[in-house]
Amino acid sequence: MTNERDMIEKMLFTHKVSQLSKALWKTIEKDWQQWIKPFDLNINEHHILIIIRSLDEATISEVSKYGVMHVSTVFNFAKNLEKRGYLTMPKSQHDKRTTYLELTDKGLEVLRKTYVSYTNDTNRLYEIATDYEKVMYNMPEFTDVKYIVGQIYGSDFINHIEQNHEQLRKYLLDERSEDDA
Amino acid sequence: MTNERDMIEKMLFTHKVSQLSKALWKTIEKDWQQWIKPFDLNINEHHILIIIRSLDEATISEVSKYGVMHVSTVFNFAKNLEKRGYLTMPKSQHDKRTTYLELTDKGLEVLRKTYVSYTNDTNRLYEIATDYEKVMYNMPEFTDVKYIVGQIYGSDFINHIEQNHEQLRKYLLDERSEDDA
Repeated sequence: MTNERDMIEKMLFTHKVSQLSKALWKTIEKDWQQWIKPFDLNINEHHILIIIRSLDEATISEVSKYGVMHVSTVFNFAKNLEKRGYLTMPKSQHDKRTTYLELTDKGLEVLRKTYVSYTNDTNRLYEIATDYEKVMYNMPEFTDVKYIVGQIYGSDFINHIEQNHEQLRKYLLDERSEDDA
Repeated sequence: MTNERDMIEKMLFTHKVSQLSKALWKTIEKDWQQWIKPFDLNINEHHILIIIRSLDEATISEVSKYGVMHVSTVFNFAKNLEKRGYLTMPKSQHDKRTTYLELTDKGLEVLRKTYVSYTNDTNRLYEIATDYEKVMYNMPEFTDVKYIVGQIYGSDFINHIEQNHEQLRKYLLDERSEDDA
């Protein structure tokens, strides 16, 4: 009986977190779609462009890992992006089974435009996070989500998010100063 | 310039949370699919059955709200479930535009079977949550996720999750004692 009770508690816990997680992701997904709609990109395509730019050399399997997408999903959407001239898909010289994804100038330009067009209208999350800050004295840090994601996807995954964060900030600030110059 | 910098920070914050949220949801989605695979149900169908059981009278729009699904998604999957004899879709006597969703005995039975078949194998989340507990002295509470979801979907949504939690526990424990009797 105790084991059965345990199982019920486990399921209830997971079910609760599932509902919260689904609701959060669906909101983010909607805002993200809204943001990139003018560029005729879907979330997967945009995410692929973002990840490629953040890596020195991006392989399909790396993009799959950091983007939480199936390898076949990455491959199919990368093919679309290739057709539109946003990236190239060269094979590795050393191992023909490895395909690299490389941003073209056109791809980098469309990505830059999505960043520049970013507005408050499609960012409910940030607004709410600052309300949270007013009450709790700090921005939400999603410590528990980060812990769980780190345990499942590995510290590599978390490190990529953190490094990409800093590197993207630098890139965007540099871009802005060039525009000012 | 300050405004542009603000916008960059907002985007970076949201992008980080997006990646964590996507990774968490994709894990939960995979585990959920794995769990209900033997019953030839998809997550939307299972979620619809769960929500209907938790409400006294479920309308399509309520299931849409609590399940974070489009009304048309609920309608289409409910039609599938109706064909399989798991629910009926009577129109309201008072307002013909309102469609109720009612579990049949067969629907309740398949739902009960999914609950009973729940095992550790498809629950990475709980395992990791207990590891977290060992370090942090409490289970992860997802306070920030809950706050954000509450702000977007309303306190109704959070109350439904909490009430459903208690009511589902009671239902499952009662079921078990009947099985024992």
